[in-house]
Amino acid sequence: MKRFGVSLPDELLKRFDVNINKKGYANRSEALRDLIRESLLKEQIESDDEIAGTLTLVYNHHTPDLSKKLDDIQHSHHGKVLSKLHIHLDHHNCLEVIVLKGKRSEIQKLADAMVALRGVNHGKLTFTLTGNK
Amino acid sequence: MKRFGVSLPDELLKRFDVNINKKGYANRSEALRDLIRESLLKEQIESDDEIAGTLTLVYNHHTPDLSKKLDDIQHSHHGKVLSKLHIHLDHHNCLEVIVLKGKRSEIQKLADAMVALRGVNHGKLTFTLTGNK
Amino acid sequence: MKRFGVSLPDELLKRFDVNINKKGYANRSEALRDLIRESLLKEQIESDDEIAGTLTLVYNHHTPDLSKKLDDIQHSHHGKVLSKLHIHLDHHNCLEVIVLKGKRSEIQKLADAMVALRGVNHGKLTFTLTGNK
Amino acid sequence: MKRFGVSLPDELLKRFDVNINKKGYANRSEALRDLIRESLLKEQIESDDEIAGTLTLVYNHHTPDLSKKLDDIQHSHHGKVLSKLHIHLDHHNCLEVIVLKGKRSEIQKLADAMVALRGVNHGKLTFTLTGNK
Repeated sequence: MKRFGVSLPDELLKRFDVNINKKGYANRSEALRDLIRESLLKEQIESDDEIAGTLTLVYNHHTPDLSKKLDDIQHSHHGKVLSKLHIHLDHHNCLEVIVLKGKRSEIQKLADAMVALRGVNHGKLTFTLTGNK
Repeated sequence: MKRFGVSLPDELLKRFDVNINKKGYANRSEALRDLIRESLLKEQIESDDEIAGTLTLVYNHHTPDLSKKLDDIQHSHHGKVLSKLHIHLDHHNCLEVIVLKGKRSEIQKLADAMVALRGVNHGKLTFTLTGNK
Repeated sequence: MKRFGVSLPDELLKRFDVNINKKGYANRSEALRDLIRESLLKEQIESDDEIAGTLTLVYNHHTPDLSKKLDDIQHSHHGKVLSKLHIHLDHHNCLEVIVLKGKRSEIQKLADAMVALRGVNHGKLTFTLTGNK
Repeated sequence: MKRFGVSLPDELLKRFDVNINKKGYANRSEALRDLIRESLLKEQIESDDEIAGTLTLVYNHHTPDLSKKLDDIQHSHHGKVLSKLHIHLDHHNCLEVIVLKGKRSEIQKLADAMVALRGVNHGKLTFTLTGNK
């Protein structure tokens, strides 16, 4: 851990303290670490470094062949698909989260292919840290 | 299914076709359904209706008490926590996806409390459909 | 100005320094102030406090009545429209930036009405500080 | 203009109609054109093609040398700075919108340099169409 001093206008510091208190942060350093990591992640996403991603899908599992097609796509890219979680939302709909790891452009393409399938009602890819940094 | 006609400038239609072809959509209707659902979801997120969310966390599992604190928060809101998925990224880091359901403001608050914990290096909440719509 | 100490893991601090150097920040405090203001602004946007917004429009100025309709909408909400900037992009297209101030929900609605007009090819509303904070 | 048929589930079409009616669209085609353009723009932003951007800045005009520094940056990239709009928000604060055009990476860098200056309290870069497409 390294320690350094930061200067903030009085009023901004007050608002920051109220905000991080509301969110439940133990102290300012913890909150600032999160802001810094989030801003670095944005840069990383714009480059094409290795990155982790979680793809959230909501789909109708009665759609013919959909489960099979999703599985086929995932198996043919097994090196990039780490795991998945499946939830039965109701009689018709499933929510699935698929964890991906690879170059940003590759996992974007993989996600696009799944979201494009008939019966997939919503798909959203979120990028996160790989854990190395 | 209802069917209706849409008019598009020639040039825009060409670019749209190239784009949805690249993403792997079977036809224009499929791609337009996704665009429409995404735009409706944005509205839903701004209201405070029931919504599903997936919270992606990356954290250092050596942080004292962190796993326990995460569990405590989840148990005390068990009605809103549907499931979770855990991945060991490397010797130090875990990626966890927690599926939430409830009013937008409630699951935002729940997510904030987990992201704010010491040892959580990145947290990102994504909203999606509940499956009812 | 208030001054306080912040602790960061060594590796994170190094990456932060590289990043803010690349972006041209004079020092860490300056960069952290921007991250803090941005995160507070996100909260403010979710509430319905007074906020400033800039609406960027790209439109085809040959579209019959479009300029008149845009003006009519702006005049009927003159208290919320502070100013506008107009650029002739090419023979057909104009870029216009309209600066708005008011409750978030009100300026969102005002922006929606302009974006929805025939001939408007792209519209994007960005929120910013009102200057009071 | 080209015309083609689109199929939508009954329930989705109803919600879409309510939504576009609320936003003030004259018809479905107009609303779908906007959704399509927005989705194509996202792709364009990820590539490094020429693009237009509007940079919204809020800054304290009492900050020594700030106006001069902003001007210097803009003049040394005059080919990419199309125009700007200035508003006096209150006794201390100005809102400025600077319209940029160029490769995405170039205007991002130009915007970063201005946002990083001391006295700039908020900066937000929004991308839009150049008008060619």
